[in-house]
Amino acid sequence: MSPRSPPFAPIQHPDTVRTMRYTIGIAGVSGYGGGELLRLLARHPQFDLVYVAGEGSAGSKLIDRFPGLSQKTGDLVIEKFDADNMPEIDVLFASLPTGKSAEPLAKVRKETRIVDIGGDHRYVPGWVYGLADIWPEKIRGATRVANPGCYPAASITALAPLLYAKLISPEAIIIDAKSGVSGAGRGSGDNKFGYAETNEDLMAYGLLKHTHMPEIEETIRQMSEVKNESSTGLVFTPHLIPMTRGILATIYARGRAGGQARGSSAGVTSEDCQSAARKFYQNSPFVRVLDSPPHTKFAAASNLAFLHYAADPARNLVMAISVIDNLGKGAAGQAIQNANLMLGLAPELGLDSPPVWP
Amino acid sequence: MSPRSPPFAPIQHPDTVRTMRYTIGIAGVSGYGGGELLRLLARHPQFDLVYVAGEGSAGSKLIDRFPGLSQKTGDLVIEKFDADNMPEIDVLFASLPTGKSAEPLAKVRKETRIVDIGGDHRYVPGWVYGLADIWPEKIRGATRVANPGCYPAASITALAPLLYAKLISPEAIIIDAKSGVSGAGRGSGDNKFGYAETNEDLMAYGLLKHTHMPEIEETIRQMSEVKNESSTGLVFTPHLIPMTRGILATIYARGRAGGQARGSSAGVTSEDCQSAARKFYQNSPFVRVLDSPPHTKFAAASNLAFLHYAADPARNLVMAISVIDNLGKGAAGQAIQNANLMLGLAPELGLDSPPVWP
Amino acid sequence: MSPRSPPFAPIQHPDTVRTMRYTIGIAGVSGYGGGELLRLLARHPQFDLVYVAGEGSAGSKLIDRFPGLSQKTGDLVIEKFDADNMPEIDVLFASLPTGKSAEPLAKVRKETRIVDIGGDHRYVPGWVYGLADIWPEKIRGATRVANPGCYPAASITALAPLLYAKLISPEAIIIDAKSGVSGAGRGSGDNKFGYAETNEDLMAYGLLKHTHMPEIEETIRQMSEVKNESSTGLVFTPHLIPMTRGILATIYARGRAGGQARGSSAGVTSEDCQSAARKFYQNSPFVRVLDSPPHTKFAAASNLAFLHYAADPARNLVMAISVIDNLGKGAAGQAIQNANLMLGLAPELGLDSPPVWP
Amino acid sequence: MSPRSPPFAPIQHPDTVRTMRYTIGIAGVSGYGGGELLRLLARHPQFDLVYVAGEGSAGSKLIDRFPGLSQKTGDLVIEKFDADNMPEIDVLFASLPTGKSAEPLAKVRKETRIVDIGGDHRYVPGWVYGLADIWPEKIRGATRVANPGCYPAASITALAPLLYAKLISPEAIIIDAKSGVSGAGRGSGDNKFGYAETNEDLMAYGLLKHTHMPEIEETIRQMSEVKNESSTGLVFTPHLIPMTRGILATIYARGRAGGQARGSSAGVTSEDCQSAARKFYQNSPFVRVLDSPPHTKFAAASNLAFLHYAADPARNLVMAISVIDNLGKGAAGQAIQNANLMLGLAPELGLDSPPVWP
Repeated sequence: MSPRSPPFAPIQHPDTVRTMRYTIGIAGVSGYGGGELLRLLARHPQFDLVYVAGEGSAGSKLIDRFPGLSQKTGDLVIEKFDADNMPEIDVLFASLPTGKSAEPLAKVRKETRIVDIGGDHRYVPGWVYGLADIWPEKIRGATRVANPGCYPAASITALAPLLYAKLISPEAIIIDAKSGVSGAGRGSGDNKFGYAETNEDLMAYGLLKHTHMPEIEETIRQMSEVKNESSTGLVFTPHLIPMTRGILATIYARGRAGGQARGSSAGVTSEDCQSAARKFYQNSPFVRVLDSPPHTKFAAASNLAFLHYAADPARNLVMAISVIDNLGKGAAGQAIQNANLMLGLAPELGLDSPPVWP
Repeated sequence: MSPRSPPFAPIQHPDTVRTMRYTIGIAGVSGYGGGELLRLLARHPQFDLVYVAGEGSAGSKLIDRFPGLSQKTGDLVIEKFDADNMPEIDVLFASLPTGKSAEPLAKVRKETRIVDIGGDHRYVPGWVYGLADIWPEKIRGATRVANPGCYPAASITALAPLLYAKLISPEAIIIDAKSGVSGAGRGSGDNKFGYAETNEDLMAYGLLKHTHMPEIEETIRQMSEVKNESSTGLVFTPHLIPMTRGILATIYARGRAGGQARGSSAGVTSEDCQSAARKFYQNSPFVRVLDSPPHTKFAAASNLAFLHYAADPARNLVMAISVIDNLGKGAAGQAIQNANLMLGLAPELGLDSPPVWP
Repeated sequence: MSPRSPPFAPIQHPDTVRTMRYTIGIAGVSGYGGGELLRLLARHPQFDLVYVAGEGSAGSKLIDRFPGLSQKTGDLVIEKFDADNMPEIDVLFASLPTGKSAEPLAKVRKETRIVDIGGDHRYVPGWVYGLADIWPEKIRGATRVANPGCYPAASITALAPLLYAKLISPEAIIIDAKSGVSGAGRGSGDNKFGYAETNEDLMAYGLLKHTHMPEIEETIRQMSEVKNESSTGLVFTPHLIPMTRGILATIYARGRAGGQARGSSAGVTSEDCQSAARKFYQNSPFVRVLDSPPHTKFAAASNLAFLHYAADPARNLVMAISVIDNLGKGAAGQAIQNANLMLGLAPELGLDSPPVWP
Repeated sequence: MSPRSPPFAPIQHPDTVRTMRYTIGIAGVSGYGGGELLRLLARHPQFDLVYVAGEGSAGSKLIDRFPGLSQKTGDLVIEKFDADNMPEIDVLFASLPTGKSAEPLAKVRKETRIVDIGGDHRYVPGWVYGLADIWPEKIRGATRVANPGCYPAASITALAPLLYAKLISPEAIIIDAKSGVSGAGRGSGDNKFGYAETNEDLMAYGLLKHTHMPEIEETIRQMSEVKNESSTGLVFTPHLIPMTRGILATIYARGRAGGQARGSSAGVTSEDCQSAARKFYQNSPFVRVLDSPPHTKFAAASNLAFLHYAADPARNLVMAISVIDNLGKGAAGQAIQNANLMLGLAPELGLDSPPVWP
């Protein structure tokens, strides 16, 4: 792949675009992703939420589920999601259970743009994989966008600058990822993430076989020279952390002497990585490269990503740390950024609130 | 009621008692109370766990549910609880769902002593209400003991010395209680105490109608001169705190000028309360009166209770703070203390491990 | 006091007011209150932050302390607070340590409006006590406003409708309040709120003598017929909860038969309280009366307050539950609402983001 | 190194050993490690705590710091640690700040056995490195033992069976470790682990240069054929998790085809690792190999370690998950196990209490 253009080249918004309003719907509103969408949409200057659908919550008013909404939004009644009988909205955010979105979303009229926050349409023909900070040019004007998973969003945001600059090998990357509990979703009926057992507890799961692995691996292939379907030897280990929000990915990779960004044949340094990442994201309002390891709290309730790099040229090791909010850049924030891009709007609309601290 | 005798009058254990071993069973082993019983029984010098029964977990080995047990205990297979076909054990600890224990426990042979940790037999004829630190003489030799609820255990431990010494009025007591989430039990199938929603959250519930209220009120009646069934005007407000274990009860009562312990007619002082409580519990190894407000962590994973009193004679107000571990003094710890008393053993057997800190 | 006018009578904003911009400063920016101000100011449509001062953090750029701020705000350099040499700004938010604000704030020029989030100017002559949802008419046009403490804000928001409607007696009110740890401030140098000891822990403190008590009592006096300096018999007990944000106040009061809102002489009912509160706050965008007890999470990171009432006419008891975010309605949110009122702006400017969930 | 003998070969205790009592002291009692020692010593059948020393807490009674201790232990007065004027005890547990133990411990008389929980004597001549489950034969009879650090204890427990069986290469091992906050110690005076900022937060630290790295690397060398001082290419990344206790280490290593335990030249399998570990620890009461990834809660407040292995022979990858309580097997538990071994006692004395759950 050729060197990419800056993701946030200034856009000239014609005045009509800047003042147009868009009607918005959410399918799957009662989960954590749906709740975060509601919060962000409340602040979007050009989006009007007009349609909300849910499964168990159908029939109740939105404010009965989310008592902090404004009265106007809160008065919306949650409907059963029915693609054949939904209003003709401009954008639909879908946050449906895995395996349950392909059929209904296929019925949505073409004029309604869809951002699928669920996992069913990632790297599926007809759908753009929505890395909004990295591949904005693919997303602009698209009508079907598959939002990346939360773990892939965290991991790839850190890897992309290194892969494109050929500073690391795409082979044998190890991603040791840690997520807050909201990443497991709301509906686990067996109460396996009950408070008393989850607080003060920590575990790894899905060793060597997590469902997010193929998605990350395919993205690594697309960002490097691994052209065919062969394995990159990726290792991905997710962990569940006793906190509600936040993902931190710790990434171990092999440096690639003589990477694109460097003239010499010496090993890759921390500085090589940091400057490659700073350049890569220089126009992005959401990705920040820090000199010291970020805390997950830096990104809480925001669409921000924080990156840090450390390398040891002597043994050819490159480490990357990536931090996001799994419900922000890992779900609802990235989804709104994608919708902005699809409509030709500035990517940061509705996403400019700083993180919550402490 | 006449002035009570010290609860922990030294007992002369004949040598046979001191070395006898007892066979123990647990019905309802897979909940939080059952788990705490397993932990405490592992250290009891005279109890041998030989029978465990559960509902959903029947058929699996104990160690598959509790991986930290010793191999010997862990090899026990969990059975379906069937009073007609259970071994002839010496003591059965029952921790069954509310409303589900009366029928099966009625079938247990008389020779098997029962401590019912559940709520179905409190103040029921034929059952002794098991306030082990306060009414040990009623429990010694009993064969059917109803363990107090966790909220009542916390509340009454603080109130008893004041009521018996007539330092407070039994009327219009307000108990504002706060409990960790394990107090809600393990099995709430609707995931309403899921981590993501329970962490960083706090709420009151059951306002003016919590199920523990009648139990507390009846005990207040028995400890004071309120002889008939008339209301004492008790107010009890439970709150759910984002922590796993621990109860703190904040109690507001009216001082009773000229209480038994005092000659004068002046108002009740903090000192009056503290010294009455210290005297009341002077022989108890488990109840401690502190000069400053206790933390719930003081009692973590122990059978201890910590009390603190503050009074304002000018406006006739008495405050009490009580701290216990809801699974210790509020459930399994008190249950073992009761079993010890029923068998004529020293109350502290198996309960002498200090709290966990931090 | 006469029946009050609705707090949020529609204001006719002349066009100049609606588009004017104001320069803003913060003294004490590095604490939790300062951080929350930064977050809220970032979204205020008419406020421009131009001056930030701190003590230990002086000399560093704001973004080094708050890595999620926008680059423009983040580039502000934190100065030592010096009232003699500060820019001529329109509004100063002061969040200084207790006892440290009287002297420096006295030097600030008159044209600069001050909202003092600290405790030094509450009920001090020359300063308006800033209950923005209750006494907005006192705040409009004022130049010196003392923000209520977080505990008083929670308590009084629930009490005001009852006191004004004479549904409860102002005597012998009991407030059992529970606060997240951020309420204790950031700088406790002795590490007494270190994570390992504070997590899974709960305690009461300041029994019968908390510093917020006089402030609450004076407000109760002003809202009722207690005209002189005599005690109202208020009891206020704060507790520290293992969570970062949120206050829940559980309030116990005596009903007042024949309160203003009712014709009959029967006891006060839950319905009396709820409808009085709904009417009282009917024009407020921030205070919501619920039919069931609110969770602190309902208000997280917002300026909202949630109220619930339960009464037992038979024994003349009225209970109120109040929930706020201690850094929102309890500090920075209310401070911005006050500044809006002082400048004649709509109270909700910059405060319309829904709470964070989960 | 030759194949090792089973660590827990049955010991014939002469009757005198079985009934002897030993006098015990703690230097540095007021930290988290000291607190955990107090808790465990209370249950040790042959140890009598007679001496406690601390720095800031000197002069106060133990029970004023640890209100849940028994009255007898609690009455001990904390002294300033002074090796020249301490009683002639049998065993001293030292838990002193880094860099502060070499000088005072050198003055302790030879007859007093020392277990140094701090880091100053690991791999120092004259001191045995106290891996009690792995090298018990080195510890039996020793008088100076350096307790492993908490991160090394977790990591090495998982690695030892693989290294000894030559199932993995000692080169380029990656240890991604996660620890609860108590691992950072109690005394961080700058409040950097304050609750409000640490809760709901997660971070990596000490990238490529943590102080525990040399200790782990030296142990790997001793367990493999890396004889000289050359680097093994070890990567160790610690993370701080918002929980009080517990360490989980996720380890990535390269399989070594034809490892000692296997005849074939095929890649190393999960089964190879599990069975090697089960055999290695077959006589240990504290190390358990599970078929699925362990939770940190499995080990809470115990001396247990839980291991799990997963391997992918196709790409020659071996993963290990290790779980301990950082204050148990990572500090006080292992220290008592070491003291038991030094005195020729059964290793599990005082350590047989199951973990706390939930």
